[in-house]
Amino acid sequence: MFRTHTCGELRLANKGKEVTLSGWVQTVRKFGSITFIDLRDRYGITQLLFAENLNNQLEANPIGREYVLQVNGSVNERSNKNANIPTGDIEILVSSFTILNKAVTPPFTIQDDTDGGDDIRMKYRFLDLRRNAVKKNLELRYSVNRSARNYLHENNFMDIETPFLIKSTPEGARDFVVPSRMNPGQFYALPQSPQTFKQLLMVSGYDRYYQVVKCFRDEDLRADRQPEFTQIDCEMSFVEQEDILMMFEGLVKRIFKDVKNIDYTDTIERMTWENAMWMYGNDKPDIRFGMKLCNLKFPSHTFSSQTDISALINGADFKVFDEAETVIAIAVPGCSEYTRKQTDELTEWVKRPQIGMKGLVFIKCNTDGTYKSSVDKFYNADRLKAIAEAAGANKGDLILILAGAEERTRKASSELRLYMGQQLGLRRPDEFKLLWVLDFPLFEYAEEENRWVARHHPFTSPKPSDIATMINNNPVIENAAEYLKHPYANIKANAYDMVLNGNEIGGGSIRIFQRELQEKMFAALGMDEAEQQHKFGFLLGAFEYGAPPHGGIAFGFDRLCAILGGSESIRDFIAFPKNNSGRDVMIDAPATIDDKQLTELNIRLAEIEK
Amino acid sequence: MFRTHTCGELRLANKGKEVTLSGWVQTVRKFGSITFIDLRDRYGITQLLFAENLNNQLEANPIGREYVLQVNGSVNERSNKNANIPTGDIEILVSSFTILNKAVTPPFTIQDDTDGGDDIRMKYRFLDLRRNAVKKNLELRYSVNRSARNYLHENNFMDIETPFLIKSTPEGARDFVVPSRMNPGQFYALPQSPQTFKQLLMVSGYDRYYQVVKCFRDEDLRADRQPEFTQIDCEMSFVEQEDILMMFEGLVKRIFKDVKNIDYTDTIERMTWENAMWMYGNDKPDIRFGMKLCNLKFPSHTFSSQTDISALINGADFKVFDEAETVIAIAVPGCSEYTRKQTDELTEWVKRPQIGMKGLVFIKCNTDGTYKSSVDKFYNADRLKAIAEAAGANKGDLILILAGAEERTRKASSELRLYMGQQLGLRRPDEFKLLWVLDFPLFEYAEEENRWVARHHPFTSPKPSDIATMINNNPVIENAAEYLKHPYANIKANAYDMVLNGNEIGGGSIRIFQRELQEKMFAALGMDEAEQQHKFGFLLGAFEYGAPPHGGIAFGFDRLCAILGGSESIRDFIAFPKNNSGRDVMIDAPATIDDKQLTELNIRLAEIEK
Repeated sequence: MFRTHTCGELRLANKGKEVTLSGWVQTVRKFGSITFIDLRDRYGITQLLFAENLNNQLEANPIGREYVLQVNGSVNERSNKNANIPTGDIEILVSSFTILNKAVTPPFTIQDDTDGGDDIRMKYRFLDLRRNAVKKNLELRYSVNRSARNYLHENNFMDIETPFLIKSTPEGARDFVVPSRMNPGQFYALPQSPQTFKQLLMVSGYDRYYQVVKCFRDEDLRADRQPEFTQIDCEMSFVEQEDILMMFEGLVKRIFKDVKNIDYTDTIERMTWENAMWMYGNDKPDIRFGMKLCNLKFPSHTFSSQTDISALINGADFKVFDEAETVIAIAVPGCSEYTRKQTDELTEWVKRPQIGMKGLVFIKCNTDGTYKSSVDKFYNADRLKAIAEAAGANKGDLILILAGAEERTRKASSELRLYMGQQLGLRRPDEFKLLWVLDFPLFEYAEEENRWVARHHPFTSPKPSDIATMINNNPVIENAAEYLKHPYANIKANAYDMVLNGNEIGGGSIRIFQRELQEKMFAALGMDEAEQQHKFGFLLGAFEYGAPPHGGIAFGFDRLCAILGGSESIRDFIAFPKNNSGRDVMIDAPATIDDKQLTELNIRLAEIEK
Repeated sequence: MFRTHTCGELRLANKGKEVTLSGWVQTVRKFGSITFIDLRDRYGITQLLFAENLNNQLEANPIGREYVLQVNGSVNERSNKNANIPTGDIEILVSSFTILNKAVTPPFTIQDDTDGGDDIRMKYRFLDLRRNAVKKNLELRYSVNRSARNYLHENNFMDIETPFLIKSTPEGARDFVVPSRMNPGQFYALPQSPQTFKQLLMVSGYDRYYQVVKCFRDEDLRADRQPEFTQIDCEMSFVEQEDILMMFEGLVKRIFKDVKNIDYTDTIERMTWENAMWMYGNDKPDIRFGMKLCNLKFPSHTFSSQTDISALINGADFKVFDEAETVIAIAVPGCSEYTRKQTDELTEWVKRPQIGMKGLVFIKCNTDGTYKSSVDKFYNADRLKAIAEAAGANKGDLILILAGAEERTRKASSELRLYMGQQLGLRRPDEFKLLWVLDFPLFEYAEEENRWVARHHPFTSPKPSDIATMINNNPVIENAAEYLKHPYANIKANAYDMVLNGNEIGGGSIRIFQRELQEKMFAALGMDEAEQQHKFGFLLGAFEYGAPPHGGIAFGFDRLCAILGGSESIRDFIAFPKNNSGRDVMIDAPATIDDKQLTELNIRLAEIEK
């Protein structure tokens, strides 16, 4: 037996007990003829005391950091107690020891603040995983996993495994494919999600399904994307949107309670996609702080229900505003005293290519009630005051105004708002604010192909009130220039995203469950009948045999864990992540394979251009 | 809201309640002006009563089998109660109904005894999954999953996800590979198991790991093999074999209790690999019944510790026995009265190519104490009696004797024993007998390459007493003809299989955790240093940084579920299985992919020979 107890287990109550411990050497400290070793395992750290009688043996078998050690001894009360660790009242008076394995010096220190850079830590991930910081992340991940499973189980959901070797039906992202040796010239695809299978399970009557499941997307990796990622994937039958929202609010609240001991009792806010874009410039707004956008000018076709207040800025002969499609103001609280240097820096910030604006207009709402702006030439104090009022600015605030093309300006405004929120410390990592974003557009317009693209995915149902519009109109866009006038442009999706602190943590929809509507959707995406049949014939077929109304949601498990752990990086919450080129640098994958393997798989490498 | 209750929920206590139900139409029965419909969902069946007032509406909207229906109504006490179903005391007096979706006639009946053949049921798997028989299997699967997770959680195991896109290191089975678009000419492999990753997690100090995880093997599919399958995969640090056996006996007993409500209190038998082969001809013996093999003659190098009793058959000038390497007898209880026709049939059975024996010798141990055999010419009554005694035969038994080359004869004896056990009803599907098989040989001999092959896998440790033999000898086999004399031939593995009713349900080992020993192992398998470094450099490296003693086990989840469900077919316990050509006939995968995809992946199809 390698141990009677773990390194986190012994207390003063065990005083005098003969024990055996095994673990890793965290530190070795020698004081004259006495040696102290901190022995570490997953459960904690226990101090070992090697008295003089073991000196010869220690000299013959020197012990270093990260050695694997087994010791026998008795539990002693410490003279010098350490209140910081649970085992701090005791130490083990070692009677004998065995070195189970040696260790060379690690390439970086196994500590919370390691001296290892990203690359070296990834190459030696098995050592990085020893660090307490990383271990805590994986423990949090497991507790989220466990909490979600328990909640779903208690609510009658069943974990049903769906296949990994499926068929390539690339819609949005690229599929990873797997050549089939037994079916020469044919390929499996790895699932981007179990979407169609979980829908089939609903057709089969399984009613409530879940899976914590790996998914795969062969995309060019932006920072913090992984080619394989994990979803908490769920589907329910006989539900409307409200049923789903309530069920999964429950899930997330349960996770908060189990994992963070947070009672999330607030009502979870709901916001339409249009309002999110209008007020935050973003479909996943961070609502931990205010600073909502003030739309001084905007394209009326995009926000047709909103009030036009462009009179506030019109007629001043200020070309920047006059020529812009969109003008958006943000009132930043308490920053009216920003120096010239500070406002210049902000101007530089918005002019960076990632933001891409031409400049920044600002209005200082001085504490004495006066205004000072970068456009004093065009706007007198009364007009500045009117703008400030519209923007909800108070005395002492600084109004920042961006102008330009709609999409870029709105995105820049969103970024600027988040940036200022960060600067002002308004985005607290220990504060959690959930939000449902609802009523997304069902379609986006694909200019190149002059057709529709499903914004969420092709299985998302329109809002019940829009189903007739979808069924009764031809999806073909006759006049590309006037695509906005096509009835499909205004169809809303019966879809919902759950947003946490400005991150989308989950998304889903009520699904189409009628063959006719599903065919309309496929047709809108430019698929003819043959292609529909080839790719999704099984699903269209299934809808003919009694498909129930159903809907679901998938949570991005990696991201959810990262946010709960107070981090923006999902990589820290994955045991063996890949880098931005999709490589696992530890095992050095992907790699070349044998010619024999290629031959068996009936494929050859294309000549690679150098 | 689509429903206030499920179809399995309402009882007499709910009498008078106004309810809404949704589900599928199981049956429609018309009695004069009244129509009864059985409405089905995952939770049960509820009888609906459509009274005369709904006749017009029913005629305008005829309802057929598998239609999806929503009804409003009140809970009535039935006049004609059905004690067979939990809702049998009530029915719903329907006030209004909505057809949520229609259904065309299913291609087979959705019943326990369906009229659908295998192929049609696989093509319409979403309908097959509606059948109660299949649903019960998936429910059992989920309850095994849940039970295993709970036990492992309570024992401090952590679910840690390992990657699916890894590196191809084909040892035994072929890897499925995935071309990398971002790394042209390179491939990922799908894991055959998370073996090296779980070992790295032990090196990282995670101590107790588990995963219920998909694994992939590109093998020619024998009946009841799947290219993707699920393992309950576990690993522990600071353990010896005994620790693992005790922990996972606990797991399996817990599953028996949770899933089958069976208290498995018997001690789980343990048997060495040699004894299993000796007594049962098989390394996964079904010990629900006796009929052990009696080894009348055997190769002494294979069973060097066993007693030679060949004198019992020698010197009788019976060429079949004299020329055979191996002679094995089985005493079949109570079959001495078998007719000539019956013994002829048995002879034909062993001569089938799958068994491949030349013939069958039998001795009838008559109830009057006399003997009658097919070899009376060679053996007198005394000798027959001596053989019968050695075989443990009683009066009334039939002794069956096979003779031939060792491997084939032993395998045939095992098959014959199982066949007779089946015939005699000794293999009861509701009886469960667990067994540990221990002390496997570490190596097998690969004749073609004149080298060793790891019987289990290259990470399995030898028995502690064999480590020195392994370290201190050169693995190279100098003299192929005498490979049996090489010291490696007798090294035993520190490995264990768990066997249930004659099926291997789990297997594992104590792992090598020392670099030197691991290098010896790789060398024995014919890998030079460069190949070791290319394939497993990360693992050899990891062993230098303080690897703890560790070991683990993996359970074949699909098979475990099948046996617990009383079936031999794993396919019935997988939601969406593939057929014997590795095809999913429902979604029609694998399939061809676009040239664009091939180009992006830098691969081409080889010319396929017609």
